[in-house]
Amino acid sequence: MPFVMDGKCSTNTAGKPIRCRAAIARKPGEPLVIEEVIVAPPNSREVRIKIICTSLCQSDVTFWKLEIPPAIFPRIFGHEAVGVVESVGEGVHEVVEGDTVIPIFLPDCGECTDCLSDRSNLCTKLPFSVSPWMDRDETSRFTDIKGETLYHFLSVSSFSEYTVVDIAHLTKIDPAIPPNRACLLSCGVSTGVGAAWKTAKVEAGSTVAIFGLGAIGLAVAEGARLCGAKRIIGIDVNQDKFELGKKFGITDFLNSRNCGDKSVSQIIIEMTGGGSDCCFECVGLTSLVHEAYASCRKGWGKTVVMGVDHPEAMLSLSSFEVLHSGKSLMGSFFGGLKPKTDIKILEKRYKDKELQLDKFVTHEVDFDDINKAFDLHREGKSLRCVIWMKK
Amino acid sequence: MPFVMDGKCSTNTAGKPIRCRAAIARKPGEPLVIEEVIVAPPNSREVRIKIICTSLCQSDVTFWKLEIPPAIFPRIFGHEAVGVVESVGEGVHEVVEGDTVIPIFLPDCGECTDCLSDRSNLCTKLPFSVSPWMDRDETSRFTDIKGETLYHFLSVSSFSEYTVVDIAHLTKIDPAIPPNRACLLSCGVSTGVGAAWKTAKVEAGSTVAIFGLGAIGLAVAEGARLCGAKRIIGIDVNQDKFELGKKFGITDFLNSRNCGDKSVSQIIIEMTGGGSDCCFECVGLTSLVHEAYASCRKGWGKTVVMGVDHPEAMLSLSSFEVLHSGKSLMGSFFGGLKPKTDIKILEKRYKDKELQLDKFVTHEVDFDDINKAFDLHREGKSLRCVIWMKK
Ligand SMILES: [Zn+2]
Ligand SMILES: [Zn+2]
Ligand SMILES: [Zn+2]
Ligand SMILES: [Zn+2]
Repeated sequence: MPFVMDGKCSTNTAGKPIRCRAAIARKPGEPLVIEEVIVAPPNSREVRIKIICTSLCQSDVTFWKLEIPPAIFPRIFGHEAVGVVESVGEGVHEVVEGDTVIPIFLPDCGECTDCLSDRSNLCTKLPFSVSPWMDRDETSRFTDIKGETLYHFLSVSSFSEYTVVDIAHLTKIDPAIPPNRACLLSCGVSTGVGAAWKTAKVEAGSTVAIFGLGAIGLAVAEGARLCGAKRIIGIDVNQDKFELGKKFGITDFLNSRNCGDKSVSQIIIEMTGGGSDCCFECVGLTSLVHEAYASCRKGWGKTVVMGVDHPEAMLSLSSFEVLHSGKSLMGSFFGGLKPKTDIKILEKRYKDKELQLDKFVTHEVDFDDINKAFDLHREGKSLRCVIWMKK
Repeated sequence: MPFVMDGKCSTNTAGKPIRCRAAIARKPGEPLVIEEVIVAPPNSREVRIKIICTSLCQSDVTFWKLEIPPAIFPRIFGHEAVGVVESVGEGVHEVVEGDTVIPIFLPDCGECTDCLSDRSNLCTKLPFSVSPWMDRDETSRFTDIKGETLYHFLSVSSFSEYTVVDIAHLTKIDPAIPPNRACLLSCGVSTGVGAAWKTAKVEAGSTVAIFGLGAIGLAVAEGARLCGAKRIIGIDVNQDKFELGKKFGITDFLNSRNCGDKSVSQIIIEMTGGGSDCCFECVGLTSLVHEAYASCRKGWGKTVVMGVDHPEAMLSLSSFEVLHSGKSLMGSFFGGLKPKTDIKILEKRYKDKELQLDKFVTHEVDFDDINKAFDLHREGKSLRCVIWMKK
């Protein structure tokens, strides 16, 4: 097979398989192994992109550790990234070779009722799934050098020098934006900012409570700050998060381990004289959703669910409270953002120096050191660790 | 004591106890007994009103049957009514003797943050409760002729020729509206119409699914029709409800007992090509909330909880579905209506012949036959049975 080595002029690679390096997860929880892989050319409506940099996001870690289905190995993880179009498959008119793009795990086909509606970000034509395949034909574009199939992850698989992504998962971005900032818009930061902006529609002057000050929670704070929230209460078990949180607009910190005989919601209700206008559960604990709901202002409070601990977890609320509280409960998936349109708005707000991305990047490593990103994540030391494919 | 018999000129009764007839519930589930009672004059911020007519609402029946706390006897039930102001207590400037008013179980003090906000209908100053007392001093205005205290119900107790109601629970209404229509705005019909209009904000052209076609469910249909819903799907176990439902704008009927091996939500999703824009659970079964939630359109569907079977019932949703569906869940208490302002809007829509109240009144009885209203309710024969205090 006429493999084309990375580094050649890209006009030579179109239509041919590319041999390049990828970080392969061969077994749950075991360090990734950088190996040579073969990346097939893009099929119809697909695009092959050269990854510039990628960052590690919670879902990569969750699925990397997972030992039961839908876990599947060997797999190429990574879904938060920025890259350059190397070649396009048949019928792709939206991007051309050389365009800078960010892959987004959530599809936006641009044709179905949902993609055409500004009320939904859940494409019907190519529904989101954790399938290990490409969206349209349920096959893989990756094989290892022994010819074994390598599975995709979240339709992105950015822990590879080259990857193939469906056009529904790509959004063009201004190449002038530094890659180690652009990649943040691809998943986590957008999710948090979007949850405040699009899902909860945080109002200027309002009060927001954020349960869990990881990267997502801090991105919610950043979004709430952008929306003009007057008071942003951060709740975490780690006292160090308060100093960190201040950079993201957190005005009040509540250590949920130091509540004495009161519940977190009781304290928040006291602090705010009735409850927070919006509460965000960013830990992924269904039990915390109940506490977040209780912390909301009666009459109009909104509780936004940002994560789940395991797919079967049931979320339990008092029906009496639901009926008599005037509160609402909603989930936020990719922050309620529409990939093709809303990311452009966030991009503009970054360029206008409103949305602050720099502070999310706490670490940067070379691709060869990708496992260090996992270590930093496990140790709770990083918000975002950017992984550079090439220096 | 200088009792004043009903029928005398009201100028003679102000400030004095009134002796009149009331239907007393002495034991759970036992027929009401019409007895003479003494109604004390209104205290500060209270109003004594002469009831013209009242109707039976589900909560009367629920609390009349209840054998455990918060049940309490002897009690004067009734909370859906219209009356005329007989006299006012100290500091009441909002109404004067002779004004036509409807009592509303939900308080609207007009002063607190909630009452001043158009986002909330849950007064903080006089919070809603099922207390058996007057709102401000936790005493009763009723005694029987032996001097025993009779308990209030929902701050209204309209199964009495005279009752005392806090000004926060009164809304003036045009005396030209027939009393047997005006009283409907006092609770049930407003609750249903409000749920569509204010809680769910049903949009023109949208699809609505209503679980349970009792009076509240049909009032939701009426509200959805007023909001311009294109398709209103009624779900019930009683096939007869379809013909009835048509009068209220129901366009499609689904008998949940005839779904074969499919769930109600599967059928609704098929019927609507994806789910209903808004779903209303009007039966008060927490298990149905789950089905209503599943019947909602992903991306934007709203599920509105209209009732609970028992106060401890927990409402359980899949956290995965909450996170990934873009749906929201909300309760509707008194239809999200603000008693002092929104009832006037419904009144106007009735006068403009948009809101149709006539069809809700299926029966009318004299006060002496009040137990017939309970019988008709138990037999499922009435939507609203109006009880006239005097012919
Ligand atoms: Zn689509
Ligand atoms: Zn992610
Ligand atoms: Zn109030
Ligand atoms: Zn009622």
